[in-house]
Amino acid sequence: MDFSFDKRTEELRENLTEFMATHVIPAEPHFAEPHFVADSREHPGAPAFGWGRPPVMAELRDEAQRRGLWNLFLPHSPLGAGLSNLQYAPLAEITGWSPQVAPEALNCAAPDTGNMELLAMFAADEQKKRWLEPLLEARIRSAYCMTEPGVASSDASNMQLTAHREGDQYVLNGRKWWATGALAPECELLVVLAVTDPDAEPRHRQSILLVPADTEGVHVVRGLSVFGFTDAAHGGHAEVAFENVRVPATHLLGQEGEGARLAQARLGPGRIHHCMRLVGMAERALELMCARAEERTAFGRPLAEQGEVLSWLAEARVRIDQLRLMVLQAAWLIDEMGAREARTQISAIKIAAPQTAEWVIDRAIQLHGAAGMAQDLPLAMLWAQARGLRFADGPDEVHRMVLGRRELARQRDKALSGEGTR
Amino acid sequence: MDFSFDKRTEELRENLTEFMATHVIPAEPHFAEPHFVADSREHPGAPAFGWGRPPVMAELRDEAQRRGLWNLFLPHSPLGAGLSNLQYAPLAEITGWSPQVAPEALNCAAPDTGNMELLAMFAADEQKKRWLEPLLEARIRSAYCMTEPGVASSDASNMQLTAHREGDQYVLNGRKWWATGALAPECELLVVLAVTDPDAEPRHRQSILLVPADTEGVHVVRGLSVFGFTDAAHGGHAEVAFENVRVPATHLLGQEGEGARLAQARLGPGRIHHCMRLVGMAERALELMCARAEERTAFGRPLAEQGEVLSWLAEARVRIDQLRLMVLQAAWLIDEMGAREARTQISAIKIAAPQTAEWVIDRAIQLHGAAGMAQDLPLAMLWAQARGLRFADGPDEVHRMVLGRRELARQRDKALSGEGTR
Amino acid sequence: MDFSFDKRTEELRENLTEFMATHVIPAEPHFAEPHFVADSREHPGAPAFGWGRPPVMAELRDEAQRRGLWNLFLPHSPLGAGLSNLQYAPLAEITGWSPQVAPEALNCAAPDTGNMELLAMFAADEQKKRWLEPLLEARIRSAYCMTEPGVASSDASNMQLTAHREGDQYVLNGRKWWATGALAPECELLVVLAVTDPDAEPRHRQSILLVPADTEGVHVVRGLSVFGFTDAAHGGHAEVAFENVRVPATHLLGQEGEGARLAQARLGPGRIHHCMRLVGMAERALELMCARAEERTAFGRPLAEQGEVLSWLAEARVRIDQLRLMVLQAAWLIDEMGAREARTQISAIKIAAPQTAEWVIDRAIQLHGAAGMAQDLPLAMLWAQARGLRFADGPDEVHRMVLGRRELARQRDKALSGEGTR
Amino acid sequence: MDFSFDKRTEELRENLTEFMATHVIPAEPHFAEPHFVADSREHPGAPAFGWGRPPVMAELRDEAQRRGLWNLFLPHSPLGAGLSNLQYAPLAEITGWSPQVAPEALNCAAPDTGNMELLAMFAADEQKKRWLEPLLEARIRSAYCMTEPGVASSDASNMQLTAHREGDQYVLNGRKWWATGALAPECELLVVLAVTDPDAEPRHRQSILLVPADTEGVHVVRGLSVFGFTDAAHGGHAEVAFENVRVPATHLLGQEGEGARLAQARLGPGRIHHCMRLVGMAERALELMCARAEERTAFGRPLAEQGEVLSWLAEARVRIDQLRLMVLQAAWLIDEMGAREARTQISAIKIAAPQTAEWVIDRAIQLHGAAGMAQDLPLAMLWAQARGLRFADGPDEVHRMVLGRRELARQRDKALSGEGTR
Repeated sequence: MDFSFDKRTEELRENLTEFMATHVIPAEPHFAEPHFVADSREHPGAPAFGWGRPPVMAELRDEAQRRGLWNLFLPHSPLGAGLSNLQYAPLAEITGWSPQVAPEALNCAAPDTGNMELLAMFAADEQKKRWLEPLLEARIRSAYCMTEPGVASSDASNMQLTAHREGDQYVLNGRKWWATGALAPECELLVVLAVTDPDAEPRHRQSILLVPADTEGVHVVRGLSVFGFTDAAHGGHAEVAFENVRVPATHLLGQEGEGARLAQARLGPGRIHHCMRLVGMAERALELMCARAEERTAFGRPLAEQGEVLSWLAEARVRIDQLRLMVLQAAWLIDEMGAREARTQISAIKIAAPQTAEWVIDRAIQLHGAAGMAQDLPLAMLWAQARGLRFADGPDEVHRMVLGRRELARQRDKALSGEGTR
Repeated sequence: MDFSFDKRTEELRENLTEFMATHVIPAEPHFAEPHFVADSREHPGAPAFGWGRPPVMAELRDEAQRRGLWNLFLPHSPLGAGLSNLQYAPLAEITGWSPQVAPEALNCAAPDTGNMELLAMFAADEQKKRWLEPLLEARIRSAYCMTEPGVASSDASNMQLTAHREGDQYVLNGRKWWATGALAPECELLVVLAVTDPDAEPRHRQSILLVPADTEGVHVVRGLSVFGFTDAAHGGHAEVAFENVRVPATHLLGQEGEGARLAQARLGPGRIHHCMRLVGMAERALELMCARAEERTAFGRPLAEQGEVLSWLAEARVRIDQLRLMVLQAAWLIDEMGAREARTQISAIKIAAPQTAEWVIDRAIQLHGAAGMAQDLPLAMLWAQARGLRFADGPDEVHRMVLGRRELARQRDKALSGEGTR
Repeated sequence: MDFSFDKRTEELRENLTEFMATHVIPAEPHFAEPHFVADSREHPGAPAFGWGRPPVMAELRDEAQRRGLWNLFLPHSPLGAGLSNLQYAPLAEITGWSPQVAPEALNCAAPDTGNMELLAMFAADEQKKRWLEPLLEARIRSAYCMTEPGVASSDASNMQLTAHREGDQYVLNGRKWWATGALAPECELLVVLAVTDPDAEPRHRQSILLVPADTEGVHVVRGLSVFGFTDAAHGGHAEVAFENVRVPATHLLGQEGEGARLAQARLGPGRIHHCMRLVGMAERALELMCARAEERTAFGRPLAEQGEVLSWLAEARVRIDQLRLMVLQAAWLIDEMGAREARTQISAIKIAAPQTAEWVIDRAIQLHGAAGMAQDLPLAMLWAQARGLRFADGPDEVHRMVLGRRELARQRDKALSGEGTR
Repeated sequence: MDFSFDKRTEELRENLTEFMATHVIPAEPHFAEPHFVADSREHPGAPAFGWGRPPVMAELRDEAQRRGLWNLFLPHSPLGAGLSNLQYAPLAEITGWSPQVAPEALNCAAPDTGNMELLAMFAADEQKKRWLEPLLEARIRSAYCMTEPGVASSDASNMQLTAHREGDQYVLNGRKWWATGALAPECELLVVLAVTDPDAEPRHRQSILLVPADTEGVHVVRGLSVFGFTDAAHGGHAEVAFENVRVPATHLLGQEGEGARLAQARLGPGRIHHCMRLVGMAERALELMCARAEERTAFGRPLAEQGEVLSWLAEARVRIDQLRLMVLQAAWLIDEMGAREARTQISAIKIAAPQTAEWVIDRAIQLHGAAGMAQDLPLAMLWAQARGLRFADGPDEVHRMVLGRRELARQRDKALSGEGTR
């Protein structure tokens, strides 16, 4: 057992930390929600609205590439930086300090990362050439269409959107929502999970289709908000209607009926990314909390010397440090044994990470008073992100149910093997 | 001891409940945050931005007046409906089902209510004629300027904005924020707490001045957001700069040096209003939660039969019912003994109400999955309101400190008097 | 609505408060757990063990009777003091300051109170004469045998102990536990819930039998501990085996098959008693907490000025005051509409009261450091009592399930009636 | 970074796991609290009281020695097994499954372990020969006398017990409590922290003296209880009075004035032991919880399929796994950089471990119903142990205060170094 990072990881952490301080953090104001951007010619607070990246993003990407901080996420792949999950994880943490800017600047932002992983693993050469290459170069963006409105999407058997084979085409009909990024002008690819055989046994009903965003019949209906935030700078979260959308059969990813398996493969490393970014988000909040505790005075003393403040700081440190170790262990397990063997740990971090980050960020908001809720600080946005991640890939309750059942099975095995005390 | 409402209260509750179902709830979509209003000619989700009430508000007000549901809030005053705090409280709860619409429709919305109370109690006749009358008739709106940026406003000694007497004028310089409603075009009056004598003993340093919103030197700088929400339909939350703002000395409210006392007088009944609305907000969330629990199916069973759902419903009921009783008791105490004697209870409900509402609303969001965070349901807005009220009139921590000290004093008295067990 | 106590209640509260200060609290050391009583002839800390009341109890009872503080619990009955539940409730709170001594001193202690209520309502004259009279005079004690080992007793269909009718006798076979008081020498009556007709529909399967404690075949097997406490001074918590125990058929209480209904009738007022005592237990803990906060100094300042202490005191006050109001409202509802109509509130207080008391007592322990866990303070005992009451009459989870279902039904009714917002 | 145990650790874990299953768990009933031991000649439940180990302990020790599971705790020392802290930590976890039996059986139980470490590091040869050797062979036991009644011992400046030098003797006067093990007949050594120079600067005021338990003037006054438990089988928790106790000056451990430093050195590895045992205690509770969830049926279904049960299991797994990693990391840090450099982590685990274990054990109790509180299951005892450890070496609040201050300092350093985002 050894808790130290290897040399390459340490070098990349140093490099990335400097990039954050010198480029990413200063660029944050460019990513303000459009309705918070003042337009002095009109009434104050008027918005200059639009979906998509502000121009500074191109500069950040150039600098990231120059520094060798590009496509770090692709584990064990020559297309990426060749890092293991365990090596990438601490870098994902650092990008979490600024989740609206840094992951995108490094071409390591969801949902493009998951989509690129899918393509790298399962796409045909032609598909790779058309979509993976420009994604790796950040010339286009993509969206992932899985969740559906009106049904409990954590239960895959509820899925409604169909893709019927007609000759050498698939015809898609249905509706998706929470398609992050789909409102951006750069978004050219929708990765769509669709029911291709409703009569097959459950895990072979679905397939993944690659749908160009400008296909006829694709209607991006509207953006969804997350506690008032639109995430406009990343193309928002779209509701998308598919009405007789026709794509060539060659746009099928992998085999027909393998959609559920492919979707599953997309999850493991993605969870590591999300969870480590949450660790970083919590660290950002804790940093702000410490600054506030020392700088703000009330009733004659700095906040740090009053009431529960030190206790919050300590509790935040304790929770963050525990969480980080569990996520790193999960990354190590994925590297050593594969995502399937690590599934208990992947469930565990999905439960723990958003809650821990939410708690720390909430305490940071509380310490800042009303300012903590407003647009001058990143805290409200961080909070909304963390709270939202308690629903991504299924709500906490579904993950707890799954993990609870695994624990029961584990204990049964232990009892049978004579280990333990029963 | 008697826990039943009197006849008049019951009649008003019935009347108001019907008004909510037939007029207020159906009007809610008109109050959507502007950036969530789709404009189909442009890209989807584009905003039609502006600060101020949508036209439907005028219709709601007419109907409320017709029903005798107007200005119910003014306790014991002939200007209002002549209700006691205890009679008004359960009505405030019902308006809390739709806090963006109902209080305003009844002319019972903060900050106008507190400002009207101040004017009713302390204003000179000329001041009443100019501002109280149009406020009571909802012809104009007002804002309350107390909190300041950059300092801990819960500690009144930190206040920086000054009003110097020069001849028969006061000259104001400084900056306020969280001036709710100040961005609305109808806002004509700023009620401003200012330091008039920095050398006086602390509780006589401040005065309240009535500043017309269009006075030269008043700059409404920008709107502040609350977890992404602008509250634009109520005139937002403004940062306001005062640069050499001159008002006649006759715009002083009450006596010079009495600002702190007047501000305090504004608090008691206002807390009842806020807290009962929070009870209503929690009831709205619980109603939505129950509907969802029965209507949404996952893994073959309605959510109501799964996991922790029944437990959440029970816990919500337990918490709400306890909270309501405590707020009603505080209202009764204010009626019986005055706000000063009720100050322990007023602190207690300020601590309890936002937290309880936040908890219930958060559970309701969780039960709705990602939909709970988005604009189709009122939950995210309700949550942001409840969370924000944990900062109104000082953060929880300040109220806990105050209440903790009172408890120590109470126990000392009890020990001295021979009661208790020490 | 009126939150003031009536005159008789106020007089009794004053009387009882004085009795507590002058007699009950000073007697507490006599009720120490026997294994903590030092015997200097042997090794220190050796116990002088035994089950049953210390002699001082007789003196306390005399004084309580002299003061008119005797049998206050029997609601609306000429056998008691003729108090309503609402009048008795605040007195039960005061006895909760010393739950090991005061209820017993006033002849208002469970399980005798519930057993006396049962007998008063349902017993034949002969039964009353033999058991109710001496119980009302505290000449004998009784135990209630409902819970069974090895099954989930919150699900009544699990009950195993049978009483077969043979001629003019019932023959009991089976095992009960958590029969509080059954180890005391004064315990002469076991009130036993037994299956008399296993083939009847569920709610008519059971009957209640009055079993003299010295009947052949009754074996008091052992005492059970509650977090290390034996409650020896009240006759402990017994496991009792019934082996061919024969009682005359005249020992049936009420009608055969009515056991479940009778057991239910026993619950409502008993919940008020338990819950108000828990309010009193929490008040005792808060009083100790305040004393400690002011008297104990660490790092140069009293604890009251450090960290979270004031916050705990405030939170304790907020929680206790809310709880008390909810229990009083439940008592009022039972008086006004009967226990059946008040069942939602009775479930609610069963959920809330033990948790609130547990929280306050736990904070009090924490503030006292290790001393809070030991025998010099009543806190550990109070904690164990409160924690144990989370299982009495079914664990929290069962009550939450029941209350959650009632809330769903209530909301369905509301939606159908057009009230609410759906 | 590597999360796998080394080969020697794995072998010892397997060996110890077998020892637990075949010897330790079956011996647990011998360690029941004496007042729960039935004596059938008298009334049931009567105690057969005494302080000290039951005879089975000798057999367990023989078996542990035979298996090479003896004195594993002494890190990096030839006197022990030569294990590092990181190697010993997972073994301490396993002993935590049965904290009343296993640590003692392996001669790895507090307070003897800490005392042996102190002697191994700082004792003179003569002192080692007289006390360390028989302790390592378990021929005698020892107690550690630091905490004092009546003062906040977490603030070392409060210490009252003095040791005055008179000629070649020290004369001790004062009082200690929570001297674990001091009531046992085998206890021959008291390791006493005493003020030797009240006028020195704070950290040089104290010294450690080795006081034979039978010295004249040493009075073991009584045993203290922990939530009703006496821990009699380990010699209880004693209050000890020192009245003119004279020991030769050669009984000084290390140098005069070095007491605080020595006491500090005792803490680091001891925290690892405590915290890993708490991990094991939580695992034991979780194992019992899983068994109960599957075996107990209510309302027609096993508990595992009802309400919050799966959620509790999942949450328990998530919390335990995070905690274990943090404790292992702290052990690794002590090995790599020394206890001083690891002090942040040592504070962090002291905060996290008892709370986590308490939470898991409390849930396990809840799932067992009233049975969870009684003597048939180890849960109530485990709970009391975990709750008590929230006070050992200072209450949570003191550790949070310390850790909060360290976090502030860390963030200041980070800001100065240009890392981070400020």
